[in-house]
Amino acid sequence: MRISFASTLLLASTASAFTHIHSRPTFSTRIMATSQDELKKLVGYKAVDDYVKSGMVVGLGTGSTAYYAVERVGEKLKSGELKDILAIPTSVRTKEQAESLGIPLVTLDTHSKLDVAIDGADEVDPELNLTKGGGGALFREKIVEVCADKFIVIVDESKLCDGLGPGFPIPVEIVPFCHEHTMRMIGNLPSCKGKCKPVLRLGSAANNKVDGDEPAVTDNGNYIVDLHFEEPIKDPTTMGKEIKNVVGVVEHGLFCGMSTAVIIAGSDGISVKEAK
Amino acid sequence: MRISFASTLLLASTASAFTHIHSRPTFSTRIMATSQDELKKLVGYKAVDDYVKSGMVVGLGTGSTAYYAVERVGEKLKSGELKDILAIPTSVRTKEQAESLGIPLVTLDTHSKLDVAIDGADEVDPELNLTKGGGGALFREKIVEVCADKFIVIVDESKLCDGLGPGFPIPVEIVPFCHEHTMRMIGNLPSCKGKCKPVLRLGSAANNKVDGDEPAVTDNGNYIVDLHFEEPIKDPTTMGKEIKNVVGVVEHGLFCGMSTAVIIAGSDGISVKEAK
Repeated sequence: MRISFASTLLLASTASAFTHIHSRPTFSTRIMATSQDELKKLVGYKAVDDYVKSGMVVGLGTGSTAYYAVERVGEKLKSGELKDILAIPTSVRTKEQAESLGIPLVTLDTHSKLDVAIDGADEVDPELNLTKGGGGALFREKIVEVCADKFIVIVDESKLCDGLGPGFPIPVEIVPFCHEHTMRMIGNLPSCKGKCKPVLRLGSAANNKVDGDEPAVTDNGNYIVDLHFEEPIKDPTTMGKEIKNVVGVVEHGLFCGMSTAVIIAGSDGISVKEAK
Repeated sequence: MRISFASTLLLASTASAFTHIHSRPTFSTRIMATSQDELKKLVGYKAVDDYVKSGMVVGLGTGSTAYYAVERVGEKLKSGELKDILAIPTSVRTKEQAESLGIPLVTLDTHSKLDVAIDGADEVDPELNLTKGGGGALFREKIVEVCADKFIVIVDESKLCDGLGPGFPIPVEIVPFCHEHTMRMIGNLPSCKGKCKPVLRLGSAANNKVDGDEPAVTDNGNYIVDLHFEEPIKDPTTMGKEIKNVVGVVEHGLFCGMSTAVIIAGSDGISVKEAK
């Protein structure tokens, strides 16, 4: 299914309204960023319009694309187009945004089953396996999204890849105790040995660039190892199982077999790829 | 292999020397306890005598039986019977005991491969699968012991069972975030559904009796769920895999396929059961 870019311009008509949200230094960067924001808005809105119905329990993702999905849910609740929505946010940031829009929130503790979850991704392979967790929130995203009947991924086309790994390191959340050992054990797994370099994330957990000297600490008080691959991962599902099985690993950023559909914003419009 | 109780009495000859370690109220309980301590000492010493050789990296367990194994390593290092031992303790308590005995300590961070590990267990099934973690230290015990070429388990015969579960709840260490949800997901696993009651451990992590109102917190800052079974677990290996795979689970207290040998102190002497 492909939707021409022209047919989506109506949705983008309010794009100028949100340039003030992000203060940007020059006219040229503002134009570029607004254009990217427009695309993010298009896919965020489309996910809500196509998959969220009244009465649903909805998982709300985190990040600059998921932001617009949350915005759209709030908008449709306000207009009355959606009713009786209960939402589960995947981060404090999303929780605050949802609260500001008057979206009723619950948690997994009271609602273990979601009708749909909508979130971005750092990389998407042809089988719709994902890498997530560049922002350090992989645990909360996974614990919510694995419980959704439908998991809708919203990305721009730069996130598509032939194979996970080389384009974006695979983050793994590990217990701090003996973390050097745990990193070594992960690096020696059949899926990883000789193929990746495990690097402890330093600085801020929400940034997989080094911006500090101390290990980054997640919301759960754990560390993050980023696995840097030079070649595409051949079997991310098996790799994910091997990694999770290591004593010391809490969770990892491979989301395999979870996506229902990926909505992609490209330079020539929006396309949707559904899981087989 | 069975060793008669008489043949082990020499080892127990110094038993009276350690009655002063534990102050006990009456003569009769002291006699009973000393007798139990004698048995613990016998198996602890035998594990070291049979499996620890000079030059080894040794994992030191935690608890009242492992205590004597640590004591024996210290004794043999002091006498010169053992040399060049490097030990990895599984708890702060064992670390302190080992330090007081002058046993050289390292960590998994520098030594990921152990020649042998010696520890107690809460329950042992006929296939030498174990339940561990009544003391709340399952994570540190497992991360060390899974790296040992040989894992020697030392117990008294009361720990033997036909099937794990009914005699001792299975502890699972979980992330605090949405722990009620995680408990529900564990309880709904194929291996667990309708078979066990997950109970959040309250009070002290080192005690699977309720001795407080707040969730017990492990060394890693996590919670513990105790899975109470009425019938023996049919396939603990599969159950362990299912549990570890749950998002929110850090580790569990089923130690399957890990034991090399179990040294058992019984009323009629010491016996050794080796893994097939």
